[in-house]
Amino acid sequence: MDINQKAINYLKSITAETISNAKSGHTGSAIGASSILFALFKDHLRFSTQKKQCPVRDRFVLSAGHASALLYSCLHLFGFDISVEDLKSFRTCGSKTPGHPEYNVVPAVETTTGPLGQGIANAVGMAIAESMLCERFGKELVSNYTYCYAGDGCLMEGVGMEACSLAGALKLNKLILLYDSNNITIDGNTNIATVDDMGKKFEAMGWRVIFVKNGNEYKDCTKAIAAAKKSDKPVIVIFKTVIGLGTKKAGTNAVHAYPLPKEELAEFKTALGVEGSFYVPDEIYDYCRISKTKNEQLNSAYNNLINNLKVQNSEKYKEFFAYFKQKNINYAKILSTLVSDGEMAGRDACGKVLNEISKIQNNFVGGTADLAPSTKAYINDGGDFSENNRLGKNIHFGIREHAMGAVANGIALYSDLYVFDSTFLAFSNYMLPPLKMRAMMNAPVLSVFTHDSIDIGEDGPTHQPIEQLGQLRQIVGLNVIRPATFSEMVAAYKIFVETKTPTVIVATKSKIKELENSSIESAEHGGYAIFETKTSPKIEIFATGREVALAIEVAKLLESEGARVISVPCEKLFDSQPDSYKKTVRLKSSKLKVAIEASCDYVWHKYVGENGLIFGVTDYQTSGNGNEVYFNAGFDSKLIAKKIKANYKKIK
Amino acid sequence: MDINQKAINYLKSITAETISNAKSGHTGSAIGASSILFALFKDHLRFSTQKKQCPVRDRFVLSAGHASALLYSCLHLFGFDISVEDLKSFRTCGSKTPGHPEYNVVPAVETTTGPLGQGIANAVGMAIAESMLCERFGKELVSNYTYCYAGDGCLMEGVGMEACSLAGALKLNKLILLYDSNNITIDGNTNIATVDDMGKKFEAMGWRVIFVKNGNEYKDCTKAIAAAKKSDKPVIVIFKTVIGLGTKKAGTNAVHAYPLPKEELAEFKTALGVEGSFYVPDEIYDYCRISKTKNEQLNSAYNNLINNLKVQNSEKYKEFFAYFKQKNINYAKILSTLVSDGEMAGRDACGKVLNEISKIQNNFVGGTADLAPSTKAYINDGGDFSENNRLGKNIHFGIREHAMGAVANGIALYSDLYVFDSTFLAFSNYMLPPLKMRAMMNAPVLSVFTHDSIDIGEDGPTHQPIEQLGQLRQIVGLNVIRPATFSEMVAAYKIFVETKTPTVIVATKSKIKELENSSIESAEHGGYAIFETKTSPKIEIFATGREVALAIEVAKLLESEGARVISVPCEKLFDSQPDSYKKTVRLKSSKLKVAIEASCDYVWHKYVGENGLIFGVTDYQTSGNGNEVYFNAGFDSKLIAKKIKANYKKIK
Repeated sequence: MDINQKAINYLKSITAETISNAKSGHTGSAIGASSILFALFKDHLRFSTQKKQCPVRDRFVLSAGHASALLYSCLHLFGFDISVEDLKSFRTCGSKTPGHPEYNVVPAVETTTGPLGQGIANAVGMAIAESMLCERFGKELVSNYTYCYAGDGCLMEGVGMEACSLAGALKLNKLILLYDSNNITIDGNTNIATVDDMGKKFEAMGWRVIFVKNGNEYKDCTKAIAAAKKSDKPVIVIFKTVIGLGTKKAGTNAVHAYPLPKEELAEFKTALGVEGSFYVPDEIYDYCRISKTKNEQLNSAYNNLINNLKVQNSEKYKEFFAYFKQKNINYAKILSTLVSDGEMAGRDACGKVLNEISKIQNNFVGGTADLAPSTKAYINDGGDFSENNRLGKNIHFGIREHAMGAVANGIALYSDLYVFDSTFLAFSNYMLPPLKMRAMMNAPVLSVFTHDSIDIGEDGPTHQPIEQLGQLRQIVGLNVIRPATFSEMVAAYKIFVETKTPTVIVATKSKIKELENSSIESAEHGGYAIFETKTSPKIEIFATGREVALAIEVAKLLESEGARVISVPCEKLFDSQPDSYKKTVRLKSSKLKVAIEASCDYVWHKYVGENGLIFGVTDYQTSGNGNEVYFNAGFDSKLIAKKIKANYKKIK
Repeated sequence: MDINQKAINYLKSITAETISNAKSGHTGSAIGASSILFALFKDHLRFSTQKKQCPVRDRFVLSAGHASALLYSCLHLFGFDISVEDLKSFRTCGSKTPGHPEYNVVPAVETTTGPLGQGIANAVGMAIAESMLCERFGKELVSNYTYCYAGDGCLMEGVGMEACSLAGALKLNKLILLYDSNNITIDGNTNIATVDDMGKKFEAMGWRVIFVKNGNEYKDCTKAIAAAKKSDKPVIVIFKTVIGLGTKKAGTNAVHAYPLPKEELAEFKTALGVEGSFYVPDEIYDYCRISKTKNEQLNSAYNNLINNLKVQNSEKYKEFFAYFKQKNINYAKILSTLVSDGEMAGRDACGKVLNEISKIQNNFVGGTADLAPSTKAYINDGGDFSENNRLGKNIHFGIREHAMGAVANGIALYSDLYVFDSTFLAFSNYMLPPLKMRAMMNAPVLSVFTHDSIDIGEDGPTHQPIEQLGQLRQIVGLNVIRPATFSEMVAAYKIFVETKTPTVIVATKSKIKELENSSIESAEHGGYAIFETKTSPKIEIFATGREVALAIEVAKLLESEGARVISVPCEKLFDSQPDSYKKTVRLKSSKLKVAIEASCDYVWHKYVGENGLIFGVTDYQTSGNGNEVYFNAGFDSKLIAKKIKANYKKIK
């Protein structure tokens, strides 16, 4: 038997065994795609098995993350830090081999996948980042392919299709999509839900299409991938495969998530001509590790190149490494330029700070879902990223919020870039899956969501975000910041730049300005006292964004009762402060607690308790003048003060 | 001048004037698409201008909802209840002419649109419903076309692409997509973000493609629509148009959301050869109302048909009307069949109730995003909906959660059907936009989201829903129900069937059973006391779903302190109960309030206040055995009881 086929048979065997042993996992595609992944790892993928990854390694994304067992078996075979013991602990708590590939858990996994379609969009982001950095620093320093393995599900998902359409427009020719076309999904044959001619569809989106009639044939697979590497467009290789090939249920949906029972596993292995349990002959290990050695040589050649550069062109060397570093930014200065303007729309302030920061932190890149003129998330002197301008810092994602979020994740995961994406807050609900994924991976992406309340007005209820703030705040690990003042706006960016954690800045289209007692430093705590009546305060008022100024007006009307206004640009950050700090912000004892925010988020109960008052939005609002809509919804200082007074009397 | 062209010119004029007058709106496409919509209303659309809509009217969806002014002008011209005064109050509070078309606000608007792509998917749903009912009752009783106007943005959105791919697979030949291809979006020319050959792309998805070179030419538009009506596949008519044609900024993104200033409006009108302000000559009104009269005749013919049917075939008449009515369902009986099974997985119980109900309420239709075997949301004797089985009750939406949600909305809006959609709770975040839209429109769709907590286990953090419950609960008008017992499961369906309001049932893959003190009636209140220690309770424990049984175990360990467990399957419903009821559920005074739910939702603060204890999920969990993951995250009765005791001591 040809050694490659023999290796593939052992790969199939340990893959099936990994799943059977765990009694959990997805046998179907993990077996069906063995030849494709083997050909990729054996002949094409430039990888590093070391912990310290080589920057010019090819990127590989397993978008159909449920085929994880195959990936782990490949990693094992090709010398990564995945042992047989690791395969045996597949899908158990704390293992290096979780159910779906997890970033920072599994060696060499570039992005966490599982929710379908996300991985394709991540790969598009990686290819964008590669093309940007390759253009900037030259292909000796940065150059690689991005491979993405995807199944039928990934290509049914809208996020996948959005990302592929974008990739075609941007002519990302080093992006190679390995499409495992087995025509089977959980419910049955794909024809119950799609008759897409996928080749034609991708051609229509500006891709090159390569067709492999038998995706189980190693030679055809490797030839196709070789051809894909020589293209001036992104490439989809369509491998026709049979799901669970070689098992009893091959070619049917029954094998999708079917760990082979003992007997079927034995039959499967016998037919493959393999022996042992979790066993691979040394001959095969040796054969596979030729690729490892070849890659190690390439990687050390790259290290030498870098070392030589240090000596021969220290300017370029410094420039290269400096590019990715966090710079010293004078935030106070940025604040003072804002303050000198008096007041401006929140979104304008937001755009201005973005521009000021990106002048210094010049590795800021990103874009909007076709709303640059509205959300102001645009780097004015950054140029537009395109086929002809790989240095452009502004990406036009098109009207594709979901892909935008996932592509941005890919850019951030590729390298140490600061990435932003942006749309109206109302449409953030189109992109919650990538926001969750970035929070889970701690990928440094900033979302700028503007038009942040019902005061967007005329566009009506579909454009008035009421539940979005709460939906974003529910995501663990995502800092949602809603600035009320210039200081808070600057602080929001400072937090993002310095922590490099996923951040959302929510900006209003209404005017904001600097308010007394606001400062970058206090805002960085997530919450601080911003106003207090002369009368010793008995009422605590929490507010965010535009409502902070309103809350201060309200407090002034409560002079006789006494009130303190606490601005809470980011409740998660505020909660994470030490008690000693929080005590300085909160009243020692308050008679009444109130929250004012033009949203329907109920998070404020955590401060105002069961009996506090929340002035929020309780229903969809009408289409009309923004301030009128806002006022009609009860955001009126006199009305609020009156209600507070009435309530306060009852308590007193 | 040809009368049609003259009419179009007046249509353009009042449209532009409507926007200019409001100083807000989207002139570009509203003007650019005038000939298309005129041709549709004049020659093709079967409509009714009466409040009581004719059931066999054609459905029209303005997916690019920002072109609303054009729609309103058309409605005015063709005799709907939209006056010049209404046009003059465009985009003002309380008007009949809001910024984007709103269901139940604007006459004849079949669905609220605005967020791009949703309308296309709604239209696909309407076409599905039409084909189902046409097959069931015959084309005399039910038969119509579904037209959808869409722009470049709608076709960039993943939800639009998902829905179109599904429509192609289902061969919805009475669906006609009117694609206004002006190649301009907010950021500029579409080629910055897409090079899609849209005709080829749609052909690849199984559609017929008709191309209109000049979409401003009335004759070509009407001819193309006529051709589209004779197809055995869904049809996209691609109209090449010029955005804002006739204005100074025509053909550029500058005209997209540009209300023409006075002078430009005057120039625009002069060039069109129109006179007056908000003026249309009687000649044009008369001409347009020929269509109205024709349609009125058709509609009264249909009414006659129905009246004749009553006499000539009273069986069929009864069957037809009975089909849509709410039936008497014996919920107690359904409960007893569940109880006789002892215990079963929450998702199984959920599927079983669905099946029992749909036997009687036989107008239940729906499906899953390729997870029927997992979520059990499948009508066992319902058959699969397809090109060849239009009576099939189960729709295979494919791996397209977003389109599924929006298509389901369309089905529900078409007629009085009960509709369900279903996926894992973790992936509900792919479909929040249509969930919001259905809540806003009060469209009766039930979502069945299963695998409802971290106890999904092996699939790992990407599949473990932690923020989803909270994200869903944030949506105003959406009842989110998480049953803990068989009674609660039956009650959840009862609530949906009887209220016909958007509902989410969240079901666990773990076992549930009937618990003492649970009943359909108490569950219908959204919250009720389910357990109490013999010792007079000082501690209140709120819980949902699987955690209710756990909370009862905890309470038993608190016998010496005394505790009451309150099951809250739906907090929104509970909150809506009268105080008199709530008082019977809550403790008069409690020393400590506790909530237990395997999610990171902070909604429980509203009951437990600032100082209560919440046992929830605070971070992403690892991949591993479900129960182990659950236990490791702290869902362990002994541990929880211990923490409560410690806390209680401090308070006491």
